[in-house]
Amino acid sequence: MSPFDKNNFSETVAALGEERLIVAIRRWLGDATPPAPAGIGDDCAVIPASPRAQVVTVDPVIHGRHFDDSVPARAVGAKLLKRNLSDLASMGAMPRAAVVALTLPPRTRIRWLEHFYRGLAACARAHKLHIVGGDVAQDDHTLAASLTLIGQPAGGRLLTRGGARAGDWIYVTGTLGGSLSGKHWRFTPRLAEGAWLAAQPEVRCMTDISDGIAKDLRPLAPSGARPALDANTVPVSRAARRAAACDGRTPLDHALADGEDYELAFAIAQRADRDVFARRWKKRFPRLPLTCIGRFVPNQKSLPSGAIDLTRHHGYEHLRATKSET
Amino acid sequence: MSPFDKNNFSETVAALGEERLIVAIRRWLGDATPPAPAGIGDDCAVIPASPRAQVVTVDPVIHGRHFDDSVPARAVGAKLLKRNLSDLASMGAMPRAAVVALTLPPRTRIRWLEHFYRGLAACARAHKLHIVGGDVAQDDHTLAASLTLIGQPAGGRLLTRGGARAGDWIYVTGTLGGSLSGKHWRFTPRLAEGAWLAAQPEVRCMTDISDGIAKDLRPLAPSGARPALDANTVPVSRAARRAAACDGRTPLDHALADGEDYELAFAIAQRADRDVFARRWKKRFPRLPLTCIGRFVPNQKSLPSGAIDLTRHHGYEHLRATKSET
Repeated sequence: MSPFDKNNFSETVAALGEERLIVAIRRWLGDATPPAPAGIGDDCAVIPASPRAQVVTVDPVIHGRHFDDSVPARAVGAKLLKRNLSDLASMGAMPRAAVVALTLPPRTRIRWLEHFYRGLAACARAHKLHIVGGDVAQDDHTLAASLTLIGQPAGGRLLTRGGARAGDWIYVTGTLGGSLSGKHWRFTPRLAEGAWLAAQPEVRCMTDISDGIAKDLRPLAPSGARPALDANTVPVSRAARRAAACDGRTPLDHALADGEDYELAFAIAQRADRDVFARRWKKRFPRLPLTCIGRFVPNQKSLPSGAIDLTRHHGYEHLRATKSET
Repeated sequence: MSPFDKNNFSETVAALGEERLIVAIRRWLGDATPPAPAGIGDDCAVIPASPRAQVVTVDPVIHGRHFDDSVPARAVGAKLLKRNLSDLASMGAMPRAAVVALTLPPRTRIRWLEHFYRGLAACARAHKLHIVGGDVAQDDHTLAASLTLIGQPAGGRLLTRGGARAGDWIYVTGTLGGSLSGKHWRFTPRLAEGAWLAAQPEVRCMTDISDGIAKDLRPLAPSGARPALDANTVPVSRAARRAAACDGRTPLDHALADGEDYELAFAIAQRADRDVFARRWKKRFPRLPLTCIGRFVPNQKSLPSGAIDLTRHHGYEHLRATKSET
């Protein structure tokens, strides 16, 4: 369904007006937003004290960029939250509260927005967090929503992108590539996996794969080293193979560069017992593949034979000049 | 300066590309963003534990709506933060940390964005908070930024919009109306005033005036009562009088309905000693006017003579159908 209705004014948010729209949003969110001031309805939301460190992240969904008319509105609402949940997962954190800033063309369908918020609320309930506040602003062109998510460590440790050393092994969860055919909104944020990994002492650092592993591995690389990935081990998804059959790029390039995999990439210590680690993983997460795809090697050493030259694969670039723009 | 450059590709963010842009943003923010993971540069920002309740709010600035080419880019960055600081002020809270989600057409000038972030950083420094994270996304049409601000009570109490009773007196700080001529970005968020007011036991509830007091007073009204404002006491700004001289609306209508005053409106208990309260205010804030503009009266009583019929003044409506849209 297109989010917009040019013909039936009465079915658009402009006909509803701001005050009734906010009442409707609270109804659509239901018990996913508590009564003010803990939820929507005051100048700020009041959230409980946090005796431990907190984490905070922000990510948007923008019409024409992160979703199009083929994605159900409920799934767009869920994707907005799941993108941010994936960031929390990558540090071993769990969510507590979120706020949503919405930018809305007046001709947006009320019904589309209702499904968007109901999808967001269902996802919030499933992950036991509250939508505590937000803002609605008008823009004549762009339908977009940005969500800020606040969380806390799931266990005793938060994992960052830093901490890998030359020689450490590189792992990824799941399979990679071809997310445009559906995974970009159907994915499951790896919260339980991230929490478990943060509790394993041999795990050194972690990130989630949002722009393609060719790009997302870079910040994990220790100073003076680079990733050497074995082309034969990268877990290429079936969707990546299908996409490659259509566009002439290789399945491997799709797996390395497509982005929106929302899997976890992490490094474990060189001296760790990888067999034991793999068995523990399999016992805890029997249905999610875990793959060792390579290791970090010192820059001065040449790449081992069969290793991928990552400089030839580019991840998702967020600022891309289009013909009409240049 | 227009934020956009259609002729000189090399001076636009598209020429810079995402990774160099993020490096530049960190440079522009300087010490307003601490090193990752406490600041920009990891999947989430890690912020300290909070032994007390916290507050969170989100507000955007959108080109063509909250600013135009006449507003200096530095002031746009500061306005983004100040709008949110005003929400904190209205509860008696102080800021701790913020994240910024940016939506950027590729033809946005690098120089405009630099001034935007430098203005944001200077404002963050002045208010002793950190910009801990953010996101940059591309949109072909709309330049917008949304900021989520996390804070904590300045003293022992947070004020909400609720708590007024019939008979309570209504006060506003400063003067009202005509903000479009400059106050909408030159305003000072009333943080010290809000903190002081939250510490006064006779103050029952508070909000900030962002959509015009005709609209913003509604959520303060106790159940079964409405505001009765004395037309002679409403502090009409000089800008409101100037605007009225040009457009034929009355200065009072500008004061009640223009919005973006970013002053505080609050109610104090009917039995409070208003003379003593006014003297304490004047001693603490000698340069900012404080005005009692009326009180909450039961719905079943008719309005006193000279009281303003607020149903005839409309505040700012955030979803307005334009001709091209309906």
